[in-house]
Amino acid sequence: MADTVFSKILRNEIPTHRIYEDDKVLAFLDVGPLSQGHTLVIPKEPAETLDQLSDEAAAAIGRVLPRLCRAVQSATGCAAYNVLQNNGLQAHQAVQHVHFHIIPKPDASRGLGIQWPATSLDPTSGADMARRIIEALAADRPS
Amino acid sequence: MADTVFSKILRNEIPTHRIYEDDKVLAFLDVGPLSQGHTLVIPKEPAETLDQLSDEAAAAIGRVLPRLCRAVQSATGCAAYNVLQNNGLQAHQAVQHVHFHIIPKPDASRGLGIQWPATSLDPTSGADMARRIIEALAADRPS
Repeated sequence: MADTVFSKILRNEIPTHRIYEDDKVLAFLDVGPLSQGHTLVIPKEPAETLDQLSDEAAAAIGRVLPRLCRAVQSATGCAAYNVLQNNGLQAHQAVQHVHFHIIPKPDASRGLGIQWPATSLDPTSGADMARRIIEALAADRPS
Repeated sequence: MADTVFSKILRNEIPTHRIYEDDKVLAFLDVGPLSQGHTLVIPKEPAETLDQLSDEAAAAIGRVLPRLCRAVQSATGCAAYNVLQNNGLQAHQAVQHVHFHIIPKPDASRGLGIQWPATSLDPTSGADMARRIIEALAADRPS
């Protein structure tokens, strides 16, 4: 995996506003916040995308998300927020190291802007897609 | 917590395309997909927002996300995807039971649309915000 700005932050080579750290996880403020309190949560394990991350590292991030979200809510006074994790350039991933955004949503103009081009699930194609995902899960090796 | 469509799915009162289940987590296809393979991952534990979820339930979701993302990638043939978790009406939460979306991003018109009104973190206000979040973390009771 290529070196990234987050590798440098993990190695303490770039100053950042750290807010949480344990043996598997680091959290710090985003330098380009969409709203006040915009926080990044990253695994120490190097992985470009979530599908490449170990179960253990992903569980460690999951475990601290509620606590971090409560702290961001408390510090910002903003109850609503989005948790977003992007994978791939097409999906708006800007740094090639897994990161979860916690983005307070104080009003319509600040925070994450979402467009929601919903369709309707056709029962037949839904059943086919579910079968394919279940088969892919069964074929996946434990990490 | 109020009963929701996801409570009914958990109780098997509504048919759905289930793709994964363990003692803490259920995953199924979204009936209003933003793209083919759009999947929802929910805790069995009732909680409206992520900040209200137990550490254990959040860790259980985190642990299965990489595996589920790989399966969705494999079944759809789409490498790029967003993982999104919304909290509060203002932040686009539509069902009042915690849910993580896995949304394949095949092209610009399908999948999650993102608007990114980035600002620049002022060092002084950043330091102040970090201090407030750290204090809120210290004051938080373990769940």
